[in-house]
Amino acid sequence: MLDALFKPRAIAIVGASVKELSIGNVIIRNLQKYGYTGPIYPLNPNAPEVCGLKAYKTLDEIPGPVDLAHVIIPAPMVPQAILECGKKGIKAVIINSAGFSEMGEEGARLQAEFLAIAKEYGIRLFGPNCQGIINSDPALKAYCNFTFTYPEPGHISVVALSGGVGALIMQALADLGIGQRLYASNGNACDVSIPEIVRYYGDDAETRAIILYTEGFSNPREFLETAREIAARKPILAMKAGRTEQGAKAASSHTGSLAGVDIATELIFEKIGILPFADEGEMVRAAMAFSSQPIPTGNRVGIITNTGGPAVIATDVLVACGLDVPKLSEKSIETLKTTQFPEAALENPIDVVATAGGPQFRGALDVLIEEDGVDSIFINFVTAPFTDTHEVARQIVEVNKLARKPIVCNFMTDLSQERFQITMRILKEGGVPFYANPSDAAKSLGALHKFGQLKRRDIGQPTRFAGIDTAKAASIIEKARQEGRSVLSASDVYTIFEAYGIPVAGWAVTANAAEAVRAADRIGYPVVVKVDCEEIDHKSDMGGVAINLRDAEAVRSTVEDMQARLGKFGTLRFFVQKFLPGGRELIIGAAAERELGHLVMFGLGGIYVEVLKDVVFKIAPVTHLEAGEMLASIKTAALLDGVRGEPGVDKEAIINLIQRVSQLLTDLPMIQEMDMNPIMAFADGVFAVDGRIRI
Amino acid sequence: MLDALFKPRAIAIVGASVKELSIGNVIIRNLQKYGYTGPIYPLNPNAPEVCGLKAYKTLDEIPGPVDLAHVIIPAPMVPQAILECGKKGIKAVIINSAGFSEMGEEGARLQAEFLAIAKEYGIRLFGPNCQGIINSDPALKAYCNFTFTYPEPGHISVVALSGGVGALIMQALADLGIGQRLYASNGNACDVSIPEIVRYYGDDAETRAIILYTEGFSNPREFLETAREIAARKPILAMKAGRTEQGAKAASSHTGSLAGVDIATELIFEKIGILPFADEGEMVRAAMAFSSQPIPTGNRVGIITNTGGPAVIATDVLVACGLDVPKLSEKSIETLKTTQFPEAALENPIDVVATAGGPQFRGALDVLIEEDGVDSIFINFVTAPFTDTHEVARQIVEVNKLARKPIVCNFMTDLSQERFQITMRILKEGGVPFYANPSDAAKSLGALHKFGQLKRRDIGQPTRFAGIDTAKAASIIEKARQEGRSVLSASDVYTIFEAYGIPVAGWAVTANAAEAVRAADRIGYPVVVKVDCEEIDHKSDMGGVAINLRDAEAVRSTVEDMQARLGKFGTLRFFVQKFLPGGRELIIGAAAERELGHLVMFGLGGIYVEVLKDVVFKIAPVTHLEAGEMLASIKTAALLDGVRGEPGVDKEAIINLIQRVSQLLTDLPMIQEMDMNPIMAFADGVFAVDGRIRI
Repeated sequence: MLDALFKPRAIAIVGASVKELSIGNVIIRNLQKYGYTGPIYPLNPNAPEVCGLKAYKTLDEIPGPVDLAHVIIPAPMVPQAILECGKKGIKAVIINSAGFSEMGEEGARLQAEFLAIAKEYGIRLFGPNCQGIINSDPALKAYCNFTFTYPEPGHISVVALSGGVGALIMQALADLGIGQRLYASNGNACDVSIPEIVRYYGDDAETRAIILYTEGFSNPREFLETAREIAARKPILAMKAGRTEQGAKAASSHTGSLAGVDIATELIFEKIGILPFADEGEMVRAAMAFSSQPIPTGNRVGIITNTGGPAVIATDVLVACGLDVPKLSEKSIETLKTTQFPEAALENPIDVVATAGGPQFRGALDVLIEEDGVDSIFINFVTAPFTDTHEVARQIVEVNKLARKPIVCNFMTDLSQERFQITMRILKEGGVPFYANPSDAAKSLGALHKFGQLKRRDIGQPTRFAGIDTAKAASIIEKARQEGRSVLSASDVYTIFEAYGIPVAGWAVTANAAEAVRAADRIGYPVVVKVDCEEIDHKSDMGGVAINLRDAEAVRSTVEDMQARLGKFGTLRFFVQKFLPGGRELIIGAAAERELGHLVMFGLGGIYVEVLKDVVFKIAPVTHLEAGEMLASIKTAALLDGVRGEPGVDKEAIINLIQRVSQLLTDLPMIQEMDMNPIMAFADGVFAVDGRIRI
Repeated sequence: MLDALFKPRAIAIVGASVKELSIGNVIIRNLQKYGYTGPIYPLNPNAPEVCGLKAYKTLDEIPGPVDLAHVIIPAPMVPQAILECGKKGIKAVIINSAGFSEMGEEGARLQAEFLAIAKEYGIRLFGPNCQGIINSDPALKAYCNFTFTYPEPGHISVVALSGGVGALIMQALADLGIGQRLYASNGNACDVSIPEIVRYYGDDAETRAIILYTEGFSNPREFLETAREIAARKPILAMKAGRTEQGAKAASSHTGSLAGVDIATELIFEKIGILPFADEGEMVRAAMAFSSQPIPTGNRVGIITNTGGPAVIATDVLVACGLDVPKLSEKSIETLKTTQFPEAALENPIDVVATAGGPQFRGALDVLIEEDGVDSIFINFVTAPFTDTHEVARQIVEVNKLARKPIVCNFMTDLSQERFQITMRILKEGGVPFYANPSDAAKSLGALHKFGQLKRRDIGQPTRFAGIDTAKAASIIEKARQEGRSVLSASDVYTIFEAYGIPVAGWAVTANAAEAVRAADRIGYPVVVKVDCEEIDHKSDMGGVAINLRDAEAVRSTVEDMQARLGKFGTLRFFVQKFLPGGRELIIGAAAERELGHLVMFGLGGIYVEVLKDVVFKIAPVTHLEAGEMLASIKTAALLDGVRGEPGVDKEAIINLIQRVSQLLTDLPMIQEMDMNPIMAFADGVFAVDGRIRI
C-alpha cells in the first residue's frame, strides 16, 4: 500500500527552488547526494533548470510516470497541486508545506479540502507540515527529506512523530555507525498514520528492528491493534515524551493535539510487548545491540574484563537491569585455568587482567559460550598499550560470528590514535556492538534482556466468564441514560456487579426503618446503613453512613435519625449492607480513556492509595496474567501475603474480580468511570462493599 | 606536600625497558610524547640508552637532583629500590609494580617493608599496583602514567581508585573536548591517600572542579573531614560503584579490601555537599558544564528551541531533575515579538522555529538573560540546512561570554560535514557546553542545578543539648562492659535515654507482683508489663509481654502468670511501663559504621519499616536541618502530617529526639547498635516505649 511512498520509481518536486538552503532546493540536493536511482522532476514556474536538472512548469509536462511528489508551496496553493497530482496519476504525496491544522481553523479547512481531493484520486498523503521519508535500499536510495544525515544501509527503521527527534535518532545511529533501512516523520499525519508506517516496517523483510518516537497517539486503539501484530514479530524500541506535566504541555504546544500527561501510551507499550525507553541516547545505543545480536534466553550474564573498576560499574548496571552475574561451574573454572594468566580472577566477572591478549580473551569467551549457566556475554575491553589489541578484537569477532549467545562490548580506547582505530574497525566489521563506557554497554545488554523477557511473556487471552447477564446490566445503564442520570444508584451499581458475578456483601435497598430492619435480619448483623439519595453527595460528611450496627434496634434508630435529619434533601432510601470488618481494603477503579477503551486501576485502599498513591494500571481487557501482574507490582504487594501474623488475602479471588470488572467494561463501553472502594479482601474471598459507576 | 609527586622537576624510571609495549617503556614514551619539560633518567642494568635517552645503571649515577621516581621492577626488589631512592634524596615514588597487599600475606609484608623505608627517608609513596599521575600544566607536562589518553590542559582534575575507570573518565573528557588539569590513580594507596589527593586538588588554583571515582573508602572519616573543606570551595562530582550486592562483590574481588554494599559513602557525599552520580557518562558530561558555566541561583529554566520534539524531551528531563519551566513575563513576551518570526511560539519553551537565524536566537537569549523569572538557559539547536548555523552559534557564544546565567546547549548536527564542524568549533571555542541530544544536555544542566542546591544547603552545626548527664550514661555502659554484658538491660537503656533527655514512657523495673502493682499505681493505668530476663530472647513469642493492663488486678495476675510460666529460665524481673495507644509508631535506629562513627536511621514503625523498608539514614552527628530532612524524605512523610482526619504528630519533638540520639552516639562511641522501636508519636510529644542498646 505504501510502496509509492517508500519505494518511489520517479519523484516530482512541486516547488523546486534554485535558492540554496531553501527546502525546495535541499530536497533535490539530498536526493542527488544520496544517489537516488530514479528520475527527479523539479517543477518551477520560472527556472529552466534546478540543481542541474531540467525543470518543468506543470506536472503534465513530465514525460514519464511519477510515483511520488514533494509539495513545497504556500499552503493555499496545495489543494490545486494535489488535484494536479491526481490527474498525473501520482500515488503518494509528501506535503512538506506547513500552515494547516497546526495553524488553526483556516489551515484545518485547507487540509480537509486537499485530503478530500486525494481520496478521490486514490493518493496517499504524507504530512503536511512534515519532513518526509528515507529509504536506504542501495537499489533505490530515496532521500525524500530535507534533513542532513545520510544513513548507511542497514536493518533499523525509524518512525518519529517529531521530525526534530527523528533527525536526532538518525544522526545518533549514524554516529554509532549503525545502518538504517527506512525513515519516516509524518508531521500532521492527515492520512498516512504511524500505525500504518509501523505495519509497513513490519512487513519489510530488511527491517529487523523498529525505533519509534511519539508524544501520544491520535488513535491509540488503532496503534495498539496494529503494533501488537508487528511487535510479536520484530523488536519495537519506543520512547514516549511528555512524561511530565510540563513536558506534556510542551508537546501539546508543538503538536497542537494532545494535552495532559498520558499514561496510556506506556500501558500500550507494555501490553503489546514494545520495549520502552526514557532516554533517546539509551534507545539508540540499544538499537546497535538489536541490529546484530540474538536475544538472550535467560538473565544470566558472564563478564570478561581486563580492568577492575569498569567491571564493578557494569555489574551494578547489569544487576539493576534484572540480570544476574552467577558463579561459574567448577568445570568452567578448571578450563579457564588452562588459558588464563596466574594473576587472573577466575570468577564472574572473569578478570583476564590488563596484560591479557587474544588467547586469554578467547579462552574466557569459549568458556562462557559453553557454560550452560550463562545466557549472554559482557566484555570490558580497554586497549592496554602493552597488548595486541587487534588480536583481542579478532578473537571477540570470531566468537561473535558463532551467534550462539548475545555479546556486548564496552570498548575503552582513544580513537584519535590510528592503532586503536584499526582495533575498532575489526570489532565494527565483525558486528560486535561496542560502547565507550561500561554503563552504556551494560544498559544495552539490559535492553536485550528486557526484550527477551517481553518475548517470553504471553499475556494470554482475556477470560470470558460464563453466567454473566450482560443484558440486565445493559438495560440498567440504558434506563439511567434515558432518565438523564449519569451517576448510577447504589441499587443499580450492585445489581450490575451481581450480573457480572462480582462478589458483593449482602445488601438491600429499603424505604424506611421497618424495611431496613427486615433486610438487616435477612442479611445478618452487623450491618452498615447508608442513605441513598441523589441529592446527597458526601454521605459520610452529612452523617448519612453508619457502620457496625449490631442489632435491629440500632438499625431502626439509625434510619429514623437519618430520616429526621436528611429528609429535607428529598426522598430518602436506605442502603443496608453486611458489615465486613477486619479484611484488607482494596481499591479497583476504571476510567474510559479517549479512543482506547478503559484503564483499570488496582491498589490497596485507605492510606495506601491516598498517601502512597500505590496503584497500578492496565488497559482493558485485562487477562489473568495481567491481573496477577497488577497484584505483584504494587509497592505494598507484600501486604497481600499477610504481615505481622495476619493471614494473607485470597489473591486468586482478586484476580478473578479484576477480570470480571474488565469484562464488564469491555461489554459496556458507555461506562465512563467506575470505583470499587473499598473492596474487603479476606483469606477466603473478596467482597465489594462500596461501588460507584458513572456513564 | 605532594608537589614532588604532581610537579616533579626531574623523573627517574627505575625499571626502564627497551621492550616496546612494556610499562617501563610506555611510561617514558608517554613523558616524551606529552612533552615533559624536565629531564627523564631511565635506569636499566644493561641498555646504554632507552627511548633515545641515556640510561643509568644506578640512581646515584644520575647527575642532577630527582623529585620523582617510577618503580617498575619485580616486587621483591622494590624495598631495595626505595632505599636507593631515599639515598638519592628522591621525595616521591610511584610504584607501578604489582604483587603486594592485593596478592596476600607475603605481598603485604613487602609493602610494609618498603613503606617503613620510605617513612625513614621522608619519601611519599604513590601506589603500589597503580597507574600514576598526570599534570597537564603546559610548563610541566608530566605524564607519569602508562595510559593512552593525552589530555589538553584544563580545569577539571580527576582522582580514581580504579585505574580502569580513571582512564575511562580521562578518555571521555578528551572525547568531549574538555581539558584536564591533574589526574591520579593510586591503586593500593599504601601512603598517599585519596583524601590527600582531593586536598591537593582543592588547593590547586587551576583546578575548578574535581571528579572522583571510588568503590568505598578505607578511612571514611578522614575522607569526610578532608573533603568537607574542599567541597565547600570547589564542586566535587563523584561516583561510587558497588551499589548492588553483586557489584560490591566484584569490587571486593578487585580491590581485596571492601565487602558488602556500603551506603555510608553516599551519605558522606550528601553530608558534605559532593554531587553524586550513578552513571560515569553523565558525570563526565556534567563536568563539561561545570568547567565553563556559573552555578544557577534558582531552579527556573528558560528553553529556546528550533525544533519541537527535543524541547519536549528536554522539558521532561529538566523537570525530573527538579527544574521548573515557568511562564515568561508579559514584558518578555512583548519583547520577543519584536525579534521572532510570526510562527514562533512565545512561551517557555520559546520555539524560534527551524528557520530561525542568529537574530531570532539572539533575541530569545537576550530576553532570557534579562528575565528575572529565569535562572538558567537551555538551548536546542539543530543545524537546519536552510539557516546560517555559524551565526546562530556566534550569537550563543556572545551571550555565553556575559557569564550572567548558565547556558547549556543541545547541539544536534552531523559532524561529518565540514560546515557543521565549523559551527561546532564556534560553540566550543566560545566555551558553550554542548551535547548531542536533549536528555544528555538537560541532565547536565540538572547537575548544575543540583549542585546549586547543595551549595545553598547549610546543614548547620549539631545541637549540643544542655542538662545531659553523659557521666551517668557512660558509667552504665562501662559497668556492662566490665560485667561482659553486650546487650544492656531495659533499666540500663531507659536510664541512659533519660540521661540524654530522651522522653520515655513512665517505667519501673520490679521484682514481683506486689512491686509491679505499686509501680503501675504510680505510673498510672493502662500499663504494659514485659518480662526482663537476659535468658529470654523473644519475649513476645514466649508470652512475656502483656499490653493494655487496665488495673492492679490485671497487673498482679499477669506477673504471677509470667512468674509461673517463665520462672524456669532464671531470675525474672518485670518491666512495667505506661501503655500509650493510638499514636503513630516510629523507629529510630543506629549502628556503628566501620571507621566512620554511627549511621542513624529513621522511619515509621510497623509495616512501614517491615514491608515497605521506608527508612532513611544519616551519619551522626545529625544536625537540626538533617533531622528535618529525615522526616521529610521518607516516602510516607505525609502520614506524619495526619491523614483521614487523624491529627499530625509533633515533628519538632521527633527532630529533637533524633538529635539527642545523635549526641548520645557521638558522646558514647562504644555503642555498636541502638534501636528505639517503637517510638509513639502524638500531636503533643513523642515517647520511646521500647529500646535496645548493644555495646
